[in-house]
Amino acid sequence: MKMLVETKYFSFDEKIKLENGLEFGPITVAYETYGELNETRDNAILVLHALSGDAHAAGYHSEDDKKPGWWDSMIGPGKPFDTNKYFVICSNFLGGCKGTTGPSSINPATGKPYGMDFPIITVEDMVKVQKKLIDYLGVKKLLSVAGGSLGGMQALEWAIMYPDIVRSAAVIASATKLSAQNIAFNEVGRNAIISDPNWNNGDYYGNELPARGLALARMIGHITYLSEESMHEKFGRKLQDKHHVDFNFDVNFQVESYLRYQGQSFVDRFDANSYLFISKAMDYFDLHEKYGSLAHAFKDSKSKFLFITFTTDWLFPPEELKTAARTIMSLGKEVTYCNIDAPFGHDSFLLEFEHQSRIISNFLAGISTQP
Amino acid sequence: MKMLVETKYFSFDEKIKLENGLEFGPITVAYETYGELNETRDNAILVLHALSGDAHAAGYHSEDDKKPGWWDSMIGPGKPFDTNKYFVICSNFLGGCKGTTGPSSINPATGKPYGMDFPIITVEDMVKVQKKLIDYLGVKKLLSVAGGSLGGMQALEWAIMYPDIVRSAAVIASATKLSAQNIAFNEVGRNAIISDPNWNNGDYYGNELPARGLALARMIGHITYLSEESMHEKFGRKLQDKHHVDFNFDVNFQVESYLRYQGQSFVDRFDANSYLFISKAMDYFDLHEKYGSLAHAFKDSKSKFLFITFTTDWLFPPEELKTAARTIMSLGKEVTYCNIDAPFGHDSFLLEFEHQSRIISNFLAGISTQP
Repeated sequence: MKMLVETKYFSFDEKIKLENGLEFGPITVAYETYGELNETRDNAILVLHALSGDAHAAGYHSEDDKKPGWWDSMIGPGKPFDTNKYFVICSNFLGGCKGTTGPSSINPATGKPYGMDFPIITVEDMVKVQKKLIDYLGVKKLLSVAGGSLGGMQALEWAIMYPDIVRSAAVIASATKLSAQNIAFNEVGRNAIISDPNWNNGDYYGNELPARGLALARMIGHITYLSEESMHEKFGRKLQDKHHVDFNFDVNFQVESYLRYQGQSFVDRFDANSYLFISKAMDYFDLHEKYGSLAHAFKDSKSKFLFITFTTDWLFPPEELKTAARTIMSLGKEVTYCNIDAPFGHDSFLLEFEHQSRIISNFLAGISTQP
Repeated sequence: MKMLVETKYFSFDEKIKLENGLEFGPITVAYETYGELNETRDNAILVLHALSGDAHAAGYHSEDDKKPGWWDSMIGPGKPFDTNKYFVICSNFLGGCKGTTGPSSINPATGKPYGMDFPIITVEDMVKVQKKLIDYLGVKKLLSVAGGSLGGMQALEWAIMYPDIVRSAAVIASATKLSAQNIAFNEVGRNAIISDPNWNNGDYYGNELPARGLALARMIGHITYLSEESMHEKFGRKLQDKHHVDFNFDVNFQVESYLRYQGQSFVDRFDANSYLFISKAMDYFDLHEKYGSLAHAFKDSKSKFLFITFTTDWLFPPEELKTAARTIMSLGKEVTYCNIDAPFGHDSFLLEFEHQSRIISNFLAGISTQP
């Protein structure tokens, strides 16, 4: 039987102060919850999504839905984020295009979509908005904050910004700062969007979309999400619907067909301006720079940490979180670090469940049985 | 004192039979030579360039030139490709845009540039055209064929196609087939060009160029040519002309500035259609498929091989040529395999000289002193 869920909305009028110094509001937050908040209001877990994710982390919106939420294998009754025990919350982050205020939302000052008038946001700003949601839901303590990739960055920022609320943080396939190579890939993706004539300085809503640019950005992204190994396994040099190369510029190899499909389908479900703002938020993420040093960043945190990396993740190489784990450990704090041998590259956090499930279940059990 | 050289041209009217079955001609070849062909006509070395290279491998075209040819550190008096001993030849390959017939050349049938009427070409076709040049220059035997990346693919094809002419092949930062990941990066680069409205199905000569698309393709390429390590060393998260991020969509980080510059400057010197055709030739390169197996491909080769890879080259990982070396060795042929510890990623073949020089000098000395 399918677990049916619905996306809910929460709005607040008071402005929040963004990291860039500007005040911004009003803000609507799209979110979903799974399981029930207990009487002591301390069994809540906040799940945080990555670049192209949304609030729909688990279950189905209707019986007809073919695909469940993006982390359905991890969230539900008896699953690692066990909805029989925990109250799991997931919200679309600030700047997104799946119900939470972002560049495609209407700017009340003009009655038109914000477009490039949307403010530059950071991971800190995303977290601040999530804090408003947590307060609104009456949650006192977060048993855990958890997410992969950009979701892991939010989890780290949560543990730093709200040390009295966050009891634990599960940070997966992520980093304490974005690398030069990742900034470079993001920059090329942004350039693909911005150089699409349909982008029109971000003012394309109601007109033709910068579809070619956004598709290109997504194609680049997809290559980086897979490992060379998994690409080889998945496609090798296999030809698309033919036995011999036919010497033309049509799709020759399966990997080409896959990328074109991924690029095109992304255009149907994602907003190009959101891509710009969110990828910038990732670029700006650097806990070392922001807090002076990593040790200084985590000095007041009361959270226990679980850091998970994947051997074939070349976009967020294991070494980075491993080093961070050592730093946090040297502060006398509890950190579990696991490097999972999985072939799927960065996407492993969405594809590898056997080890991830066991590790996360045990980690959460350890937190929930402690006072 | 600068070694002054000039680019020469050789044309032939008879058509060559392309790997795709079509006949193609006439063809002009741009080439340069360094050193002198000896009396026995057997001291010639053919140097083969990579995707964006040209015939100008060494020396200067004029006293005013600031930059020498692309492999000047390797070619010249007393250098590994020692022009006191060897007669070094380099030509722009078929499909290029630096003097040899390519998509931007005039199609004699129409009086206009070929554009997309240029035939699909392969590495085999490039080699066939080079063979015409070698014959024209009166070279009987090639002491060596040598090149990095796509240049290495040509060297491998030379050793297979002309076993009685090629005495040795130095194959650097290359592979016996292009990987799925490389095809994927090429496909995104081609899509960037093709989706640029100025591309106009390849018919843009004399009009606005598909500059945005070509710049994007080059930016993607540049990320793949560098290692994460070298990017980190070179740029890290260093800001461009500022001390703090200023929260906007201008260039924030040095790596962004570098990529934009590389993209833009490529547009001034390279033809977008050449990029399409050459990257396709790379995609099609697969000696395993073409010859049934790698062992079968090399069974008649009389060449000695030098395979050089670089530890941080993730675009052409060392393992591929290492495995190929084993296969060729198992045929009882002489193969030297060196994996050089260098931080520059794929670009190491253009940047690392200390080890490369010594290894190539010794390899060539070994060939030239044998009968």
